[in-house]
Amino acid sequence: MSDAQDLASSVRKATLADFRAVARAIEADVIRTPLLPCDTPDRTIRLKAECLQPLGSFKVRAASSALRVIDPKGLSRGVATASAGNFAQGLALAAARRNIPLTVHAPDTAAEIKLDSMRALGARVVTHPFADWWSIMTSRDTGADDGVFIHPVCERGVILGNGMIGLELAEQWRDVDTVLVPFGGGGLSCGIALALRALSHPARVIACEIETSTPVKAALQAGEPVRVERRPSFVDGIGSTGVLSDMWPLVHELIDDSIVVSIEATKSALRDLALRHHLVAEGAGAVALAAARSPQCAGKNVVAIISGGNIDPAVLGGILTEQPCPS
Amino acid sequence: MSDAQDLASSVRKATLADFRAVARAIEADVIRTPLLPCDTPDRTIRLKAECLQPLGSFKVRAASSALRVIDPKGLSRGVATASAGNFAQGLALAAARRNIPLTVHAPDTAAEIKLDSMRALGARVVTHPFADWWSIMTSRDTGADDGVFIHPVCERGVILGNGMIGLELAEQWRDVDTVLVPFGGGGLSCGIALALRALSHPARVIACEIETSTPVKAALQAGEPVRVERRPSFVDGIGSTGVLSDMWPLVHELIDDSIVVSIEATKSALRDLALRHHLVAEGAGAVALAAARSPQCAGKNVVAIISGGNIDPAVLGGILTEQPCPS
Repeated sequence: MSDAQDLASSVRKATLADFRAVARAIEADVIRTPLLPCDTPDRTIRLKAECLQPLGSFKVRAASSALRVIDPKGLSRGVATASAGNFAQGLALAAARRNIPLTVHAPDTAAEIKLDSMRALGARVVTHPFADWWSIMTSRDTGADDGVFIHPVCERGVILGNGMIGLELAEQWRDVDTVLVPFGGGGLSCGIALALRALSHPARVIACEIETSTPVKAALQAGEPVRVERRPSFVDGIGSTGVLSDMWPLVHELIDDSIVVSIEATKSALRDLALRHHLVAEGAGAVALAAARSPQCAGKNVVAIISGGNIDPAVLGGILTEQPCPS
Repeated sequence: MSDAQDLASSVRKATLADFRAVARAIEADVIRTPLLPCDTPDRTIRLKAECLQPLGSFKVRAASSALRVIDPKGLSRGVATASAGNFAQGLALAAARRNIPLTVHAPDTAAEIKLDSMRALGARVVTHPFADWWSIMTSRDTGADDGVFIHPVCERGVILGNGMIGLELAEQWRDVDTVLVPFGGGGLSCGIALALRALSHPARVIACEIETSTPVKAALQAGEPVRVERRPSFVDGIGSTGVLSDMWPLVHELIDDSIVVSIEATKSALRDLALRHHLVAEGAGAVALAAARSPQCAGKNVVAIISGGNIDPAVLGGILTEQPCPS
């Protein structure tokens, strides 16, 4: 059995009781984020404000859950991860609380504000060119003896921790029919989808991608992961050159579709999140609102997962003071 | 008996059951705002994120509550108010839902973003030089036949609506000992203090003022309202030339102290709210966090009421991209 089948079959077996046990265990590490109204005439949109979590993203759920399930003997040697920022920040907080040394491998495109936050929490940060970093992400080999590797996406603990959002959503808005999730590696969308399935909740889970990198759209069309181009943009928290093979069985089974949004629509969503809803989102967080406004969601009861809020102040300031395009 | 005594004695008589009845009646108009952690080494600070309310401020609580208690016969002629923005926005939403015409009298220093939002909700907006506007606020005479006047502060319904925040706080954090409230007219701070008193909760309620206008500090020192200078600043939602005489009996009885913060400390708080806590606050909203960081609050369990988030994008963008002072 391959690793992909191992991970997929392991999380598929997770019961509602498993999801609830994780949620209880990490309750003190996270907040129950509010679901904020954001109505438009032809659909109902609500914002799940994960940017309000400690350290500014949902990843604190995943990281707290992941550390919890590792054998403590292994942890004494420290842990390592590969992350563009938010997962590593969450892991840095969870590891610092438990006095566990952490090495973070980050792409050299990661936002400095995130790297600084990890360092402030005591993590050692090593940056790599994007291709090398992606190779660590797919091989789990950091090229150094830096402890137990915790994958930011393909870990049972990560996926179960993210499932907590699905449990909250179903309680906060029973009538939600569409959940829009920014797609980084698939841990968030699959975690939410699995928790909703464990609850027998019928909402569809849809991946949100930015036009500069659309691995899910491409994989769903091809019926398997394919290599796609990835152009850099201010949306640095999502987007890759392909769906991870370990995640594909789950993505294929659980994710109904991909909505691809433009850079301009994402900037406009980010601006409205700040000025109308008073939430600071990073680019990846804003794609879900941009997707919620797309024609595909007309008539729906949509939750947009505002996944994180860690954005360089200069980028945010620039977008806020730019004139919006005439619509 | 003067109006001031009327108002004070009327709200002093409000029971816990009265506060709870208002809270239930306006539950559908508002959200239960989260209380977000914001710890620092020598004190515990939590942020009551009222900037996440519909229309971006706590005023939707006050406005929904105020309209609810007016005789429907009077309402058919329409209503009028005097407000720098946030209360009028809340009232515009509540009035639009009930098809009641609304005239808003605003100072010509009010943020355009707020006036636009009222107009979009169907309100008629009349602007006045600050002194003329303040005269409407104190006399309740708009100089025109524009319906029942609803005062943004000195109304029983307003004060009881604001009290809902006190009920939520006491549930969310039993151990809070200090509640810091941006002081505009006193409706927010007195509403919260009365609700806490109705609950027999011992937390102190402290007014937060900006250095450019300190009417509470001056009145508490003098033992009565005195006229103070008011210099304009980006903090446009609070600050006046004196505590309203109608409110003084309540302020004197319920508000323990005033903490005055600087423009620089407020900008720094506003920047941290956006970049660390992912909340967009207006200047008035940020003064409570600035006050929470002052020496007076060392060792305390402090709630900072982040009262609103409606700020001009250019002002916000400017503060975000400014370099913070070395600390």
